[in-house]
Amino acid sequence: MLAKMLHTLFFFFFSLLLSSSHASVLDFCVADPKLPQGPAGYSCKKPAKVTVDDFVFTGLGMAANTSNIIKAAVTPAFDAQFPGVNGLGLSIARLDLAPGGVIPMHTHPGASELLLVVQGFIVAGFVDSSNAVYVKKLKKGDVMVFPQGLLHFQVNGGGIPAIAFPTFGSPNPGLQILDFALFANNLPSPLVEKTTFLDDAEVKKLKAVLGGTG
Amino acid sequence: MLAKMLHTLFFFFFSLLLSSSHASVLDFCVADPKLPQGPAGYSCKKPAKVTVDDFVFTGLGMAANTSNIIKAAVTPAFDAQFPGVNGLGLSIARLDLAPGGVIPMHTHPGASELLLVVQGFIVAGFVDSSNAVYVKKLKKGDVMVFPQGLLHFQVNGGGIPAIAFPTFGSPNPGLQILDFALFANNLPSPLVEKTTFLDDAEVKKLKAVLGGTG
Amino acid sequence: MLAKMLHTLFFFFFSLLLSSSHASVLDFCVADPKLPQGPAGYSCKKPAKVTVDDFVFTGLGMAANTSNIIKAAVTPAFDAQFPGVNGLGLSIARLDLAPGGVIPMHTHPGASELLLVVQGFIVAGFVDSSNAVYVKKLKKGDVMVFPQGLLHFQVNGGGIPAIAFPTFGSPNPGLQILDFALFANNLPSPLVEKTTFLDDAEVKKLKAVLGGTG
Amino acid sequence: MLAKMLHTLFFFFFSLLLSSSHASVLDFCVADPKLPQGPAGYSCKKPAKVTVDDFVFTGLGMAANTSNIIKAAVTPAFDAQFPGVNGLGLSIARLDLAPGGVIPMHTHPGASELLLVVQGFIVAGFVDSSNAVYVKKLKKGDVMVFPQGLLHFQVNGGGIPAIAFPTFGSPNPGLQILDFALFANNLPSPLVEKTTFLDDAEVKKLKAVLGGTG
Amino acid sequence: MLAKMLHTLFFFFFSLLLSSSHASVLDFCVADPKLPQGPAGYSCKKPAKVTVDDFVFTGLGMAANTSNIIKAAVTPAFDAQFPGVNGLGLSIARLDLAPGGVIPMHTHPGASELLLVVQGFIVAGFVDSSNAVYVKKLKKGDVMVFPQGLLHFQVNGGGIPAIAFPTFGSPNPGLQILDFALFANNLPSPLVEKTTFLDDAEVKKLKAVLGGTG
Amino acid sequence: MLAKMLHTLFFFFFSLLLSSSHASVLDFCVADPKLPQGPAGYSCKKPAKVTVDDFVFTGLGMAANTSNIIKAAVTPAFDAQFPGVNGLGLSIARLDLAPGGVIPMHTHPGASELLLVVQGFIVAGFVDSSNAVYVKKLKKGDVMVFPQGLLHFQVNGGGIPAIAFPTFGSPNPGLQILDFALFANNLPSPLVEKTTFLDDAEVKKLKAVLGGTG
Repeated sequence: MLAKMLHTLFFFFFSLLLSSSHASVLDFCVADPKLPQGPAGYSCKKPAKVTVDDFVFTGLGMAANTSNIIKAAVTPAFDAQFPGVNGLGLSIARLDLAPGGVIPMHTHPGASELLLVVQGFIVAGFVDSSNAVYVKKLKKGDVMVFPQGLLHFQVNGGGIPAIAFPTFGSPNPGLQILDFALFANNLPSPLVEKTTFLDDAEVKKLKAVLGGTG
Repeated sequence: MLAKMLHTLFFFFFSLLLSSSHASVLDFCVADPKLPQGPAGYSCKKPAKVTVDDFVFTGLGMAANTSNIIKAAVTPAFDAQFPGVNGLGLSIARLDLAPGGVIPMHTHPGASELLLVVQGFIVAGFVDSSNAVYVKKLKKGDVMVFPQGLLHFQVNGGGIPAIAFPTFGSPNPGLQILDFALFANNLPSPLVEKTTFLDDAEVKKLKAVLGGTG
Repeated sequence: MLAKMLHTLFFFFFSLLLSSSHASVLDFCVADPKLPQGPAGYSCKKPAKVTVDDFVFTGLGMAANTSNIIKAAVTPAFDAQFPGVNGLGLSIARLDLAPGGVIPMHTHPGASELLLVVQGFIVAGFVDSSNAVYVKKLKKGDVMVFPQGLLHFQVNGGGIPAIAFPTFGSPNPGLQILDFALFANNLPSPLVEKTTFLDDAEVKKLKAVLGGTG
Repeated sequence: MLAKMLHTLFFFFFSLLLSSSHASVLDFCVADPKLPQGPAGYSCKKPAKVTVDDFVFTGLGMAANTSNIIKAAVTPAFDAQFPGVNGLGLSIARLDLAPGGVIPMHTHPGASELLLVVQGFIVAGFVDSSNAVYVKKLKKGDVMVFPQGLLHFQVNGGGIPAIAFPTFGSPNPGLQILDFALFANNLPSPLVEKTTFLDDAEVKKLKAVLGGTG
Repeated sequence: MLAKMLHTLFFFFFSLLLSSSHASVLDFCVADPKLPQGPAGYSCKKPAKVTVDDFVFTGLGMAANTSNIIKAAVTPAFDAQFPGVNGLGLSIARLDLAPGGVIPMHTHPGASELLLVVQGFIVAGFVDSSNAVYVKKLKKGDVMVFPQGLLHFQVNGGGIPAIAFPTFGSPNPGLQILDFALFANNLPSPLVEKTTFLDDAEVKKLKAVLGGTG
Repeated sequence: MLAKMLHTLFFFFFSLLLSSSHASVLDFCVADPKLPQGPAGYSCKKPAKVTVDDFVFTGLGMAANTSNIIKAAVTPAFDAQFPGVNGLGLSIARLDLAPGGVIPMHTHPGASELLLVVQGFIVAGFVDSSNAVYVKKLKKGDVMVFPQGLLHFQVNGGGIPAIAFPTFGSPNPGLQILDFALFANNLPSPLVEKTTFLDDAEVKKLKAVLGGTG
């Protein structure tokens, strides 16, 4: 009886307020890839169509195939794969590093990274603007942070497969792998050589390896 | 004569510049609810269709009906009601608290709040992450600030109706009322009990009051 | 008995977590004016010395003296007066406008403003970058928003005293009153005249009124 | 010979530039807890004293003790424990949930959370501002994101110990556990009851359990 | 042979990762003026349609016509003219100041300005919120910074044409020229006079010059 | 007489307001290098000690010495050299490129760059996260924007000395020159080789040139 009365009265009282907050714009903005993107990210899916599955990503539980030349694999859960992170300033990926595996020197132009090792050993490092080097051998349970935009790398540091999860301070951190940026495109060899001081032979060999032209 | 000449020449001189700033994107972005929303808010209404009425909200002058169980009412002027605040990082609401009235324990997930009392007395308080309590009896002309995301409440602190105006550091601050979040939905009672340590009877009673199921 | 056991066990369990969150840096940063300031605001008072009074400002309840030439008064509650707003992106002030009173043309360089009228009538307006004018006569309970950095003004719009409360999206919004900026300092008259197209006589008269030199 | 010449000339060429970037302010700002804090975080340790160990945290590899009433434990690596994350907008923690374990209903006032499950099963959920519920049973390798400031919880969802790593979009996300905020302090019982609609008996029982007074 | 193998294996390894980063949302968001705008700027052009010409602006190399009453000209390269700067927080313009030329007193509501003089002499200045004046005669190669939202001006400070390039911390800094805001629109003369303390004759003369009404 | 009266009354009226804004914290925060730094920049110099010279930098007018191996020079005006830009999100530098000169491949970890060519010809380019190349030959008066964190370079594109001014969206953009990061420190050669796929001979040669060890 009291309950019914309370229920009725609450209904009246908060109806205006709730109708306004129904859109929940500030709570979250699940990406709708069919609508325009802006500098702050994807446009939002209509709240009525959002489900819990937009906030859950299930693809990081399995080992990726590391039977490749770098004996490593990266599986991203960025906004393009995981629409719930749009606008929330976070994303994640999985690294698999077989023995001898390496994630080559790279940067994330728009985000810092926090790497968690959950299996094996990883030698990780970064270089700062004053060219100081920060390298550490990480074991299971260790965490290392790589400040935004700086060159860094990870290599397997033991005889067993290593697994790690990098988290990023952006729903789409970007990724610029040094060798791909220099050698896997049509940037003319003379320009690469002039701006990196690398030998012509070295540049041409790596362009061939990575599919670059010019 | 001089005036005419000046006018003519100014016209030439600033025409390019003015045409570029005509869109006034940086000045404001009045919400157009028919266009997509993004993480930064609503898309902008065309500048040519913006009028002064987009920047004025007239619904906060009248007392709202407080003849309800909590003897209180909230009237929001957020971006959904007040399109001019979109993108400007501010919004406002009106609180009416009859004698004995209460705004229940709640949070604003995305904004700090600055409460101005303009009539009567209000006992207001918040709790911080270290569980410290900050409570004060406010009178007409007093202001209290509630830091972002923390649980807080307001109750009438006198025998007369109280009026206050909370301002928020976001055009849509969000609002999560504790009792509604726990009891006014289909969150299963066992989960509520397990995660709040409340009795089964208490949970079921409040679910009944607030229209929750499960 | 159960209560005691629960209490004991909770104590152990959360001790590390609580000790870390004890500093409550993210919850708030009450200004300590004796420590250095930075681009983001004042340094924080030690959490142990923070009290509820840091979050409450009591100076806005009384009418300020408007027996002056502009028949108006402004009482600020910015971070310098109200340390609790430091770092929270909000502040407030009180405007008293006697009949005939005026708050002269001005800007806030670092914040948008949301003006709430609580007594009387106020004619308020702003001008945007394309020189469009937005003017409205506001009555009790009306709200008007002034986008960041644009010239705006408020004048009493009735025969009775008016009171309003502007809220700002910054703990220190700044305030640049046009006449003070032009005439209340040592900016040489020739420079004022050249950059404003005002007459020499007008400039010198206003410099005399406002205490400017040069 | 060429190498020596190059070295010498590079030295001259970049000396001014390098001396300016030596401070590396923009690269990172490792927390120095002895200096003042501001709204943006801790003051920075002198670059010359920064080592790789400031960027590595080693405390998350071991299971924490879950022999307590909630059969759970939280181990934080926030800025207070992990000085390298200061200013970088990221932090991490470890959750251990024994069978039957629960992380009670809570919010992070200043950050979104991305939870990665690495062992066992966890039922996790959150409630948004429109009181909609989002609950999912997560398994090893699943990730769930909890938008900033919303109430959420995690409970063990299987018969085996579960381990998860929440990452946060802030170096100090804050943590407000609902029961602690309501019952583990001196917030007077009548105020708790009035603002939560809980029974007096329930409030007093939980205050006793959690060490609250009043 | 090795190169071919490497190429093949790299292709497999990074395909998932590259497909996700292909959209390059975080790298840049070139403005598409046909799509909606939001508080953070224009919507992004499809990455596949972006070319180097979106990142290059070629209109600042020629002197603009300064045969006008203020003997000056401004050529903007803001987001409306230069789509590549959208979302990147930067834009630029060119100032031409003939002998005797002047850029009248103005503000940029949403950005700080950094002015580089490349030819001639410029007397530049700004006034802060405490009405302090900062004026300096700048020569070729000098740089002056004008903090966001403050009134400032530039006048030719020598007998020869001056050229300068202001850069702004926003892709669309806005521009509010004082005389235009006061006199080049329909803001009624009595309101202008009341809020600026200028004489009626002065106001009417400048309104006539600048095309204002009322 | 009127003037004196006005002056007196203004003095009373605005005294409280002006005293509060006197600190001008929001207007600017000129760097004081002797006080602590935080994530948002340097602590602020006392407003009373700020002069116009804090906002003016005079070192960019002269050609720097390009008689070095890369036939180029960079002269920065970042916050360490130019205290007025602290907290304002902008800085500038000067590039001198003799015929044949090159600014090697590099990134700015924390800022986008807008390059203005004022003399000669420059071939400039950047590579994005999808490895697409954007290269353009720039002439006097051309502007090119380089999005944050991406690898880019500039080389003299003509037979005459070139001069350009890069502006950055940060008071300290950071600078990571690829060759310095890889070869001018103690990062062990095997790690460099493994993470870049460069030959041992190439790595050792460049380490010798640039002063690296290991």
